[in-house]
Amino acid sequence: MKTVSTSKAHGGVQGVYTHQSKTCDCEMTFAVYAPPQAAQQPCPVVWYLSGLTCSHANVMDKGEYRQAAAEHGLIIVCPDTSPRGENVPDEADNWQFGSGAGFYLDATQEPWLKNYRMYSYLTEELPAIIAEEFPADMERQSIFGHSMGGHGAMTIALKNSGRYRSCSAFAPIVNPMTADWSSGAFARYLGDDSANWRSYDACALVEDGYRLDMFLLDQGDADGFLETGLRPWLFEEVCKKANIPLTLRMQEGYDHSYNFISTFMDDHLAWHAERLAG
Amino acid sequence: MKTVSTSKAHGGVQGVYTHQSKTCDCEMTFAVYAPPQAAQQPCPVVWYLSGLTCSHANVMDKGEYRQAAAEHGLIIVCPDTSPRGENVPDEADNWQFGSGAGFYLDATQEPWLKNYRMYSYLTEELPAIIAEEFPADMERQSIFGHSMGGHGAMTIALKNSGRYRSCSAFAPIVNPMTADWSSGAFARYLGDDSANWRSYDACALVEDGYRLDMFLLDQGDADGFLETGLRPWLFEEVCKKANIPLTLRMQEGYDHSYNFISTFMDDHLAWHAERLAG
Repeated sequence: MKTVSTSKAHGGVQGVYTHQSKTCDCEMTFAVYAPPQAAQQPCPVVWYLSGLTCSHANVMDKGEYRQAAAEHGLIIVCPDTSPRGENVPDEADNWQFGSGAGFYLDATQEPWLKNYRMYSYLTEELPAIIAEEFPADMERQSIFGHSMGGHGAMTIALKNSGRYRSCSAFAPIVNPMTADWSSGAFARYLGDDSANWRSYDACALVEDGYRLDMFLLDQGDADGFLETGLRPWLFEEVCKKANIPLTLRMQEGYDHSYNFISTFMDDHLAWHAERLAG
Repeated sequence: MKTVSTSKAHGGVQGVYTHQSKTCDCEMTFAVYAPPQAAQQPCPVVWYLSGLTCSHANVMDKGEYRQAAAEHGLIIVCPDTSPRGENVPDEADNWQFGSGAGFYLDATQEPWLKNYRMYSYLTEELPAIIAEEFPADMERQSIFGHSMGGHGAMTIALKNSGRYRSCSAFAPIVNPMTADWSSGAFARYLGDDSANWRSYDACALVEDGYRLDMFLLDQGDADGFLETGLRPWLFEEVCKKANIPLTLRMQEGYDHSYNFISTFMDDHLAWHAERLAG
């Protein structure tokens, strides 16, 4: 791991790091905020997964998470949203596919399968680095994210039972198999047989028996992607059928931007901190 | 005034606006955050002036001011740092002069004098627009800023006695006449006679009898510009001689970035809010 930059913030350290990823076969960048408490003792880890077009940097700049993380003593890890680099296949003009649009899955189709392995990267390779390089208490982890990153957080949490104490999301894509901005990408990363898409779809995972009892979702009702891409009511339905407790809050007047995320960031971190205590 | 964008944030509205400026003879962009209280009643106005290379957008993205502004019911105005546009003279490769480096003065030298009039723009034209277009209580104003914007806030507050109830700054350039990143720009905007620079220099203004009793300055001691560009001890000296109360806080380990600004943003806004109450 190489340190790109560190800067004191809210008593802790906001850092940016790179490493050569075996999983994604390219150099990957990620951001970690270590709260002041991390200088004394291991701290719980909260993973934040970002949305389409983002890198590690967007939420680091605009997410306003450091004050609450410092208050609650949480390490915040902000990974990139896809592999990147000269040798990584991409479609520069397509914001819903390739760079910035990894969809937190392991691709099975050529030419994507060699690099686009964000699921394995985030569940295996990067956690090992975090455990090694930071004062992280890996017995206490939670995960959250925005939009495509909400999808990532929910599917990763559902499939890794017992690893994350809680999962929350801002405006998540809850049913990417049928959402207009993701179904095309799923076909190209995973092939045409949509049976193979189910393990990367929060609604389908719940239907298929996966469980997590700690979900908090916030959704702005002025979000332009609400009807075609997000549709949190689909997740509400499957949770109801499966008797999974879910807190879904429709937030009046909020859009899909970081203004929405940053407004409810404190709430989400306080909620995770409660579940990570002790 | 044209609305570029609005977005709900922390219960209020973060907007970006443009207008054709007579003072700067070009289109100018600025950001305004209107807190939730502004829907019911006029609110005090706090001006935030940004540093070198910035536009209105940097602090809007990274400054983390909205939560505290919403709490205290403050309108936050974030202007640009210079005129901009095809017809505005500039030096594209020079980050210390021209675009992004207006230094909050009225230039007197060709070819800069036609557009580079940020002092008049910020003390006359833009306040009139804010008073007209927003629910602003112009009897209650304060001003703050970062680096070059700290210089702007301090000199504007000193020269407009009675207009601003308080002035604070993050890592301000307190003596731009002698600082390495500003003296060259002063010579080109204002001519070689440094007697004409004194009205845009906080230290010189205090020496020349200008007064403001409400100053709060924060300065990171890991700031790479501390010794050559910032030197807050120079302002401390002149304030001591002039019997001006000054709170100067050296903040251990903080650099010159928005991580420093955002860490102390709540403090500054709470401090201004106290002085703007009633």
